[in-house]
Order: sequence, then structure tokens, then C-alpha cells
Amino acid sequence: MREIGPQRFATVPVALGERSYPIHIGSGLLSWLGAEIARQTKATRAAVVTVPAVGRRYAGRLLRSLREAGLEARQVTVRDGDTHKNLREAARLYDALLDFGADRSTVVVALGGGTVGDLAGFAAATFLRGVPFVQVPTTLLAMVDASVGGKVGVNLPRGKNLVGAFHQPRLVGIDVDTLASLPVRERAAGLAEVVKAGLLGDAAFFEQLERSAERVLELEPEALLPAIERACAIKAEIVAEDEREAGRRMLLNLGHTLGHAIEALSHYRGILHGEAVAMGMAFAARRSEALGLCPSGVAGRVEDLLGRLGLPTELPRHPRRAYLSALRVDKKRREARIQFVALRAVGRAETVSLTPAEILPAGG
Amino acid sequence: MREIGPQRFATVPVALGERSYPIHIGSGLLSWLGAEIARQTKATRAAVVTVPAVGRRYAGRLLRSLREAGLEARQVTVRDGDTHKNLREAARLYDALLDFGADRSTVVVALGGGTVGDLAGFAAATFLRGVPFVQVPTTLLAMVDASVGGKVGVNLPRGKNLVGAFHQPRLVGIDVDTLASLPVRERAAGLAEVVKAGLLGDAAFFEQLERSAERVLELEPEALLPAIERACAIKAEIVAEDEREAGRRMLLNLGHTLGHAIEALSHYRGILHGEAVAMGMAFAARRSEALGLCPSGVAGRVEDLLGRLGLPTELPRHPRRAYLSALRVDKKRREARIQFVALRAVGRAETVSLTPAEILPAGG
Repeated sequence: MREIGPQRFATVPVALGERSYPIHIGSGLLSWLGAEIARQTKATRAAVVTVPAVGRRYAGRLLRSLREAGLEARQVTVRDGDTHKNLREAARLYDALLDFGADRSTVVVALGGGTVGDLAGFAAATFLRGVPFVQVPTTLLAMVDASVGGKVGVNLPRGKNLVGAFHQPRLVGIDVDTLASLPVRERAAGLAEVVKAGLLGDAAFFEQLERSAERVLELEPEALLPAIERACAIKAEIVAEDEREAGRRMLLNLGHTLGHAIEALSHYRGILHGEAVAMGMAFAARRSEALGLCPSGVAGRVEDLLGRLGLPTELPRHPRRAYLSALRVDKKRREARIQFVALRAVGRAETVSLTPAEILPAGG
Repeated sequence: MREIGPQRFATVPVALGERSYPIHIGSGLLSWLGAEIARQTKATRAAVVTVPAVGRRYAGRLLRSLREAGLEARQVTVRDGDTHKNLREAARLYDALLDFGADRSTVVVALGGGTVGDLAGFAAATFLRGVPFVQVPTTLLAMVDASVGGKVGVNLPRGKNLVGAFHQPRLVGIDVDTLASLPVRERAAGLAEVVKAGLLGDAAFFEQLERSAERVLELEPEALLPAIERACAIKAEIVAEDEREAGRRMLLNLGHTLGHAIEALSHYRGILHGEAVAMGMAFAARRSEALGLCPSGVAGRVEDLLGRLGLPTELPRHPRRAYLSALRVDKKRREARIQFVALRAVGRAETVSLTPAEILPAGG
């Protein structure tokens, strides 16, 4: 922890060779970020891309800090919601960047949740074949998930995230103060990815979450900041080993194979991504036990912790054949088999090549 | 030169670390390319993206050779012409890839000119965040220009190539037999980029072109193959030093600053890209002499060689203020100044930072 004025913050490095970047985590960060963005990007202009609700609350502080650092800064507002994360909204964003006179020394700053980050990041990855990009996530899910990995993209009518790129940000600024306005249900959904980080890579961190679940959910700084920091660090470590998702990075799909199927079957309505991932993780833990891949008791611990965070752990009721067909369109499939992420223990996961029918056995 | 069956071919390596790839140049290559694509990409499927006129002539041979190599291969036809190189046509291409069941082990093969390569390459760069890509250029311009450098992209209503990516192909297969059906005017336009390569980087190659201009234009294999090979090699060398266009790669813009302005002022009608570049190169040579940057006589040689190839060397008549405003929207501008590529000699170029008014002085 370093001091900035009266505030404390931590930095998690993401080691990707010449694409390495820092994640700064702390309170009061927005007012300090402009100088850091200027320093890291050498940009002369900044387009702050946000949605109306987030812009009203936080854009002013960020724009002011960018201008104080000598950048010409402008807010660009995009439509809220995943249904607008598409090529048409990207085209509107390109237009706004042209209106702003954006060139290759213009940084695109995404201020908002994962949807804004994905859309603004895709525009940054492709406008003039790539301009500098900075993420300022304002939801817990975006802080621990979207801020590490460089995945950006938009949906097609036939599927989510089917078009995109890997475009690493130059830096990520996480101001935990922005979580104050986040509804508790979204907070909980974000914590699903924090739990995932522990399950995948760090038994001690998972145990720490077992001790502090309620305090993290209540945003107590002493519990929250280290949780965000550790979750980012675990993901950063995995991504650093495998930037383009050829091997170990697949482990980050823990809970996502079923999670995506659940989201598709519910037509992405009434269920948050983190909730679907929670159900998928609990399922993966139970299935790993049933396949004899991990000791019994693991699934119980996973379900308990998720339950204390207010997250669902049972699959929604849909016919088995509906689940099977949803699994078959998962874009990560390689021919007919799916790289299913199974648990070997709390803190250790691995991929197992299974057919959809093996993932969801009849009567299972 | 190596032997493949009865044919001879040459290979130019493009050295880009783990993104390195070979350019194979020869006659009769289409029938052999399937096996090479299978070997280099390990793909299980191939989507051959082409336009109707090119597909009718050459897709059959390529599809057959891909199938003989064990790949499931399908032709995907896109609309011809630069006006269709846009996000809407990209969306149609994504749809066709989904119909084909394309996944990350599907290779996108662009069969056609630069427009097809740019569009198919952009789709390959962004579909599922990137799938393998192979270029099979069938115009001389695409062979010596688009096949090296990894630039892919689409136009926006407000400008050309404003959206795109750097996505290196896994290999490039140049079958010079496909040039037989190319109109002589397009052949000449392609040679503008061959002349550029000599001007930028190799005085001896420029002299060789001075000796063989008519024979290259007539597609005599003994003159043509080495010219394509050397032009690709010069561009490959520059790109290898500067993949992301931060420094030396800017030299490849020789003739393009004015060339783009000419194309914009003619609304991209009635003038081929290579013709605009030829006019831009002749202008750059004259301007370099006038600025005292290169010895007199250089511009004369440039104009002579271009003229023998049937290429124009005088700027079309437009008001100076129209040129100035066209120069100002060039996307490579960095603030108000333009990195203008000037000649220091035949075989040596460098960038000079000039304002539009300095590039085109009043009464100049």
C-alpha cells in the first residue's frame, strides 16, 4: 500500500512483456487518475466512454483530473445494457471519436461496468487499427474480471462476444468508492468471480473468503480491498502465462460452460452473469466430485460460501436436451468435445475433455 | 527456387517473431496450397472468402486442394468493390462463418485483391477474437502490398480504413498464373508499389526495373517473379523492424499522403489506388528535389519509369485549398503536421514533418 494524499492504494502488476500494465486499487483514485493516464499513455486527448447513469455520478471527477493533467478530455455516452453491445453501437462510438478529432495519440477511457469496457475496448482495439485504452471499472464484476485479460468485444445477433479482440489496457484504475452506488445483488454477482479466483488458484484465499464473506459483501475496506487485489493478482498470473487463451487461461472458464448455457436458456433476462457463473461453479464442483476428480466435501464448501454471499447454486429448471443444445453452441468448443473446467481440490482446477452428454448425464 | 512438381517457386520469409510467416511465390501454386495451409495452420476447416468474378475462375482449384489435404472447405462470396468493404459486409461475413460452424480451428482464406484481403482479414482478426488467416492475392497490387504487413480493416462512411487491426497471416500464397486475367491497367497500378519498394530501399532493384519495365508489364516470368519477390522482401524487411507502424514503417507511405488526397478528391472514382500512389510518388520526388533533400535528376527517373509502365505522374487539377483540406483529414496526421515521406536518393527515403501548406506551397 502506498499513500496518495490521504488515501491508500495497492498496485497489481500484469506481466505481459511490452504489453505489461498496472492495476491500481484504492479509494479516491478518480481524482488522481488523470495524471497517471497522462504519464502512462503520453496521450494528448482522452475520450471518456460511459453510460448515462455512471457518467452522471463519476465522469465529472475523471474529466477534471484528466484536464488538470493537460489532456483535452470529452465524455462520450453510449447506450446502457448488453443488448447495445453490438456493431451498431460500435459504429456510433467510432463516429463520436471522429467528431472529437481522435487520432493515435487519443486514449479511450472506459468508465463503467463490463459492458462499457467491452464495447469501448473493442472500439479502441479497432479504431485506426488500435489506439491506447484505459479501464476504469465501476462494478465489482468488471474490477475483478474484465480489468484483467484484455478481452474486448461485441455481441452478434446470434451470440454473445462472437466478435472482438485481445487489446490490453495501458492501465486499470479501480476506485472502490464507486461501488457505494452498486446494488447489493450486483455486488454479490461480482463476488462470484472473486470466489472463482480462490477456487482456481489459492486455497488460502478461499479460506480467507470463508472467514470474511459477509464483511466483503458489506464493502468493509479492510476485507474488500485485499479481496479485489488478490482476485486480480490470481487472474493476472494466469493470463500472464497464456495471453491468447491457448492453455492454462481456459481455467478461467470455471463455471462458465454451464453459466453461458444458463444465460442463453434464460435469454439473458432476470439473471446476472455472476449468478449464472455461481450456479455453474457449484455445478462444476458437484460434477467433479461425482466423477471422482476431487474429494467429497469440496462442493459443499463451494455451495456454502456462494450461499452466504447471496448467490444461487442450483441450475434453473430446463429440459436436459435444452442444456445439451445450449452447450453445443458454446463458442469455445473444439469439434464435439468441450474443455470442461473441473476442480481437483479447493485451489486447484484442470480441464477435462467431455462431450455435452458426459457433462450432463441423463438422470444426473 | 525450389521445385514443386513441374513448377518452380520462391519463398520470402517475413520475420515477426512468433508471428513470422512465409510468402510463397510461383506458378501453379493454387493446386499445392491446400497441403501447405493444412501444415501451417493445423486447421480442420477453411472458409475461402472471395468475390464472384475471382471465385468463378480460381476458387475451384483452391477448394479441391484444401479438401485433398483433409480440410472441410467452403466458398464464401462477398460483394465486390471498395464500397462494400464496410462493417455491414463484415457482419454478413460473420454470419456466413457461423453458418459454416466456424470455430478457432477454422482458417479464413482470402482469395482476391486487396479489398477482399482487408475485409476477410478484418473478419479473421475479430471473429471469436481472432482465427487463423491466409492470403491468396490475385492482383499484383495485393501481391506486393497487402500480402505483407498484416494490416486489415474496413471503411467507415467518413473515411477509408478507419477501422481495422494488425492481424498477420499464417502464410501467403502468390500464384502468378492468376495475373493472366488481370486487366493491363490494374497490372500497371500494381507495379506502382513495386517501384515504391525500389525507391525506398534498393537502388539496384530500381535500376533493374529501369532495365526490365516493359517485360515486367508483359508478365514475362523471368522478369516478373524476381520483381514480386524483391518487392515483397523489401516491404517484409521494413515491417519486420516496425510491425506496429511506430517508425520506419511510415516510409511505406511514400506517395500515399498525396495519393490518399487524390483518391478522396476524386471520390474514389475513375482512379486506381496504384495510379494515385504513382502520382503521389512523382510529386514526392519533385517536392524532395525542390526542398533540396535529394539531388536533381531523381524526379526525372521516377517519372520516366512510371511513364513507361503506363502510370500517371501529374496531380489531377483540383483547387489548392481542396488538396489542403484533404491532407488535413489524413488519419496519420499527428496534430497539425504530417509525416511526409521524402526521397534523399533513389533507394533512400525519410520522413519530414511538414504542414499541409509546406507540402503544397502556394504557386508550387
